[in-house]
Amino acid sequence: MRSHSHFRIQMKSLKKTVYEIIEEAAPGNRVSEIFDVFLITLIALNVVALIVGTVEETYQIAPRAFDLFEVISVVIFTVEYLLRVWSCTENPKYAHPVKGRLQFVASPLALIDLLAVLPVYGVFFFNLHGLDLRFLRVVRLLARMVRLGRYFSSLRTLGRVLYTSRSELVAVVSVLFLLLVMTSSMMFFAEHQAQPEEFASIPKAMWWSIITLTTVGYGDVFPVTAAGRLLAGIIAIVGIGLFALPAGILGSAFMEELGKAGNGRTVCPHCGEVIEEE
Amino acid sequence: MRSHSHFRIQMKSLKKTVYEIIEEAAPGNRVSEIFDVFLITLIALNVVALIVGTVEETYQIAPRAFDLFEVISVVIFTVEYLLRVWSCTENPKYAHPVKGRLQFVASPLALIDLLAVLPVYGVFFFNLHGLDLRFLRVVRLLARMVRLGRYFSSLRTLGRVLYTSRSELVAVVSVLFLLLVMTSSMMFFAEHQAQPEEFASIPKAMWWSIITLTTVGYGDVFPVTAAGRLLAGIIAIVGIGLFALPAGILGSAFMEELGKAGNGRTVCPHCGEVIEEE
Amino acid sequence: MRSHSHFRIQMKSLKKTVYEIIEEAAPGNRVSEIFDVFLITLIALNVVALIVGTVEETYQIAPRAFDLFEVISVVIFTVEYLLRVWSCTENPKYAHPVKGRLQFVASPLALIDLLAVLPVYGVFFFNLHGLDLRFLRVVRLLARMVRLGRYFSSLRTLGRVLYTSRSELVAVVSVLFLLLVMTSSMMFFAEHQAQPEEFASIPKAMWWSIITLTTVGYGDVFPVTAAGRLLAGIIAIVGIGLFALPAGILGSAFMEELGKAGNGRTVCPHCGEVIEEE
Amino acid sequence: MRSHSHFRIQMKSLKKTVYEIIEEAAPGNRVSEIFDVFLITLIALNVVALIVGTVEETYQIAPRAFDLFEVISVVIFTVEYLLRVWSCTENPKYAHPVKGRLQFVASPLALIDLLAVLPVYGVFFFNLHGLDLRFLRVVRLLARMVRLGRYFSSLRTLGRVLYTSRSELVAVVSVLFLLLVMTSSMMFFAEHQAQPEEFASIPKAMWWSIITLTTVGYGDVFPVTAAGRLLAGIIAIVGIGLFALPAGILGSAFMEELGKAGNGRTVCPHCGEVIEEE
Repeated sequence: MRSHSHFRIQMKSLKKTVYEIIEEAAPGNRVSEIFDVFLITLIALNVVALIVGTVEETYQIAPRAFDLFEVISVVIFTVEYLLRVWSCTENPKYAHPVKGRLQFVASPLALIDLLAVLPVYGVFFFNLHGLDLRFLRVVRLLARMVRLGRYFSSLRTLGRVLYTSRSELVAVVSVLFLLLVMTSSMMFFAEHQAQPEEFASIPKAMWWSIITLTTVGYGDVFPVTAAGRLLAGIIAIVGIGLFALPAGILGSAFMEELGKAGNGRTVCPHCGEVIEEE
Repeated sequence: MRSHSHFRIQMKSLKKTVYEIIEEAAPGNRVSEIFDVFLITLIALNVVALIVGTVEETYQIAPRAFDLFEVISVVIFTVEYLLRVWSCTENPKYAHPVKGRLQFVASPLALIDLLAVLPVYGVFFFNLHGLDLRFLRVVRLLARMVRLGRYFSSLRTLGRVLYTSRSELVAVVSVLFLLLVMTSSMMFFAEHQAQPEEFASIPKAMWWSIITLTTVGYGDVFPVTAAGRLLAGIIAIVGIGLFALPAGILGSAFMEELGKAGNGRTVCPHCGEVIEEE
Repeated sequence: MRSHSHFRIQMKSLKKTVYEIIEEAAPGNRVSEIFDVFLITLIALNVVALIVGTVEETYQIAPRAFDLFEVISVVIFTVEYLLRVWSCTENPKYAHPVKGRLQFVASPLALIDLLAVLPVYGVFFFNLHGLDLRFLRVVRLLARMVRLGRYFSSLRTLGRVLYTSRSELVAVVSVLFLLLVMTSSMMFFAEHQAQPEEFASIPKAMWWSIITLTTVGYGDVFPVTAAGRLLAGIIAIVGIGLFALPAGILGSAFMEELGKAGNGRTVCPHCGEVIEEE
Repeated sequence: MRSHSHFRIQMKSLKKTVYEIIEEAAPGNRVSEIFDVFLITLIALNVVALIVGTVEETYQIAPRAFDLFEVISVVIFTVEYLLRVWSCTENPKYAHPVKGRLQFVASPLALIDLLAVLPVYGVFFFNLHGLDLRFLRVVRLLARMVRLGRYFSSLRTLGRVLYTSRSELVAVVSVLFLLLVMTSSMMFFAEHQAQPEEFASIPKAMWWSIITLTTVGYGDVFPVTAAGRLLAGIIAIVGIGLFALPAGILGSAFMEELGKAGNGRTVCPHCGEVIEEE
């Protein structure tokens, strides 16, 4: 009985230590810092291996090494995921042993961690030959990239920028969507007869609209009739100005967000009064 | 005689109720709000159906359903239009039973509503096989999109932006037009002999100018002579800076307009009073 | 003797009237205003005729009409030019009957007026079959467009914008030129062996550089080797940011210039003191 | 013995004179100014000759002249380099006869000067037929361009701009890199089966990503499947806004840097004293 209680106390203290190591490094905790660097390096190498592994010539140099590295990575990611679920009750937010853990598992970050390993087990245990394995590989790769991105402070900055300028972006994107539908409809009616393949329907004409209005202009679809060219010319001049709006909004919001990282207020050095808060 | 007068009073009260329901929902009027949501949904579905209906494979799944939905929509739109014309006299602006109604019918919004249904009747009653039916379909589709756009507050914002920056835009567009004509003329003379098909005339060379200066660059027309390439290089570097001006003007006007919606106020640093609410 | 002196006085008064009519309309001078409108319309029609006349199908409708209109225009432009030279002595700047007139003839605006008519006489009198007549047609057309542009106030605005931001533009353009030469050299060495035709020399590789860095991207020339693509990717990301600089400089200078047209200073409405001169 | 000491003194004075002439012209030193102009002209001509020499037709006009000019240039550059190394001890930074000179030789500017001549000797003396001579030619040409760039004040401005906005640029570029990898992965999985050649691997799909997100859009690679086009459309609209960020950051930093060169000063509205010279 006593040894059991003793074991519980030891477990508790172990859980706390594990929690502190796994969560982002608190300043001064060397073990946690080393663990973080190790995990970031592992994820980064893993992403590089998954990308380089798609080049047939590179993969053929050492296919076993690529596969082995994948297995080792998945084992480590799984252990880390299980330890995270086990120790999450240390976080006051997820304190309840059952409900708290379920809430943690359902949190976006934990779901991404799960998506980074689960597809591999899906292939392993159930031999899902029927399903599209490529899709599982995308999920796995993207989930690991998102995991990697979590350590980029600039991605957090971008997230804040998107959040603060969300109302502007929604306003602009809804205008752009309407513009897209309108220009596609007009070009469909103008070019459908001359190019029944490329402008087969309005949704197909949208491909032309997007590639033109973003100024990419691959050249796989373009108007050939005089009416279509006149229309396309007007659409290009008018629409490109509107399609450049999101870039402008993002740009100025980004600059402002980065400016905030500075001191953010101007003080007159002569009388010491604040002149303007930026 | 009495019942007739009674009927007139009932009609008057009915007209008022109809007017209040059809016009944009006053806060608190539940019936009007429900009617608005119903109409927006109907128009949106209608636009989607018209777009998706151009995809042959999708249309062939249930051609009768598409046609039936179109007929029902047109009937509802027609009834709504007639009710609108009948009840518009409730608006002090269109109070006169005859002159007021004619003024209402001639207002831009009512004309668009009419254009959203009239083409269908044109096809129906007069069997206009000689006319270009495609043109009527574009008119119908665009008119319904504009109807839909009326409920987008961001489109109203864009409208205000275009209005406040109209003098800048006119100034820039007139410069761009002159630039377009000049660069097309120069390229016509430089490339006409080498590519008599693509640079057959100055108006044809304008297609090259627009696609180059907007940086779309499909690649269907490009200079091949040394002189043409030198000229095109200079035009590209100089002209693209000028063709990016409308985007910049729109962008900063848009940001300013959206900023106005915020709390922003400026305080005089001398006396501390509010100078302007932005 | 007396009649001769009388004639001189009459001529003087006539010269003054001609000068006032031909020069830009002073407010209130109806004849001068009508003359200006007439001349602008004539030049505009002339430019349109020259452009539309390059479309073979349009020209063939009435070749005689096009030619006749050209002859009439040239006669009017010539008379106007001669009257301008004769009456320019009314302007204190060109007061001297010989030296003043020579100075006037050598002024840029008068030279452009001369270029707008002279090429026609060159063809007429000297039958210059040996010379490249196309070149004379470009000169004539461009000179008339510049004449037309003189009446666009927005072109004057653009001129001021280019003038005020000339130092920034020169700085940026010199950087861009160096960048252009460097990227072309690198791409020449990377792609010369794989594509000896498209990347035959560094000047030829510059065509690729300009079309890529301005993001036009026709697709007539692009790297095919792995090294070339890696290099092109880096060049695209780095260089496009730099090639967008002139557009940004022009844009903000343009906005500032247009803003100046407003009142240009902010006054606190409470204490009446100027807070900032824009 | 005396003559030896006398010689040392003469050498010292000669070294000082040489140092003053070779280093950037101090105001008033006419000889140094002339030397600078001569050297800039020589380097500029040399760069032009190297570029024009890649055009076969131009080179064949006078191959001996091109080669001779190259030999003369290399001799002058070598002499200048040796004089620079010899006289650098006049600079307090490199005062020590051995250690100072080694430090000077290892400085970036001196290394570039060395790279501008060394490749030629490599070819000359060692007859390096095995090595890739083209690479040496690039190094030589680029090194001479960088030498030329050293005299462009606008390049120094750009350097300062890149330095002051380095943290923003690093933040943005890391986001762009992640975006590039993610979009390439998604497009690889979407298009690999339909276009096994163009989307052979994720690194190959990156070529598509860069060319699309920078809006160059050559049209050599583009999605053909419906899924790929939908994905590409979303990527284009979202990604182009992000890829335009570096241009915006560079642009505003450049404008600010150039503004600093102006007179601009800010005065505190409370006490009227100058707060900062912009």
